[in-house]
Amino acid sequence: MAENESEARIGRFAYEGLDRVFHEKARLSILTALVTYSEGLSFSELARLCGLTDGNLSRHLDVLAEAALVKITKGFEGRRPHTSCALTANGRKRFREYLTQLEKILRDAAAQEDAAGSSAAKTRTRPGLAGA
Amino acid sequence: MAENESEARIGRFAYEGLDRVFHEKARLSILTALVTYSEGLSFSELARLCGLTDGNLSRHLDVLAEAALVKITKGFEGRRPHTSCALTANGRKRFREYLTQLEKILRDAAAQEDAAGSSAAKTRTRPGLAGA
Repeated sequence: MAENESEARIGRFAYEGLDRVFHEKARLSILTALVTYSEGLSFSELARLCGLTDGNLSRHLDVLAEAALVKITKGFEGRRPHTSCALTANGRKRFREYLTQLEKILRDAAAQEDAAGSSAAKTRTRPGLAGA
Repeated sequence: MAENESEARIGRFAYEGLDRVFHEKARLSILTALVTYSEGLSFSELARLCGLTDGNLSRHLDVLAEAALVKITKGFEGRRPHTSCALTANGRKRFREYLTQLEKILRDAAAQEDAAGSSAAKTRTRPGLAGA
């Protein structure tokens, strides 16, 4: 196959946009919850929805807050301390960009299935190795 | 919000199916390439398509081969050593299951956007906190 290697598009499947800040499993869970509840969630609701311990959630929120992707507001609800978490505008924008990369992966993976029953479609699913 | 916490579905956004074997960025890249080229790829083509160094690719292929998700075949093409890589049937099946989880994340994240212009649709996008 050596003669085809020069035709393989370098980095065709590299997905450089899969930022590790977002791609970590627990943070992906947190961000999807926060993008869904756009007005924000309390710390305890977020822990529950994501199935995370308080310690784990706290650790990951620190990473996200340091990157200015979420904002944490500490206050009181009556006499009880209350922490709320919400995406920042930049966090929402960048998470959308990350999700666009996930969509691209799903499209790339689905291309093979489209070709399964059709040899005519096969070249389309081999974007890097024309005629291989 | 304390009164709503009992209504928040535990683990609604936990995505337990995001197996770390698949979710690691470089391995996700490798597996998407292999699912696209169902007849397999040479080691050098795979490195090029995924934008990985030989060392990095080798390390991640070891993880995938140990989990019996890919099979590595070492042989010769003429006089040159030639290594080829392909998904196993089980690897393909389990990667599909992983992709189904990614689709779920995209659906969950998209639900919020659907609601942006429609208060009628809003309750649908708040699956864990009915009436919140």
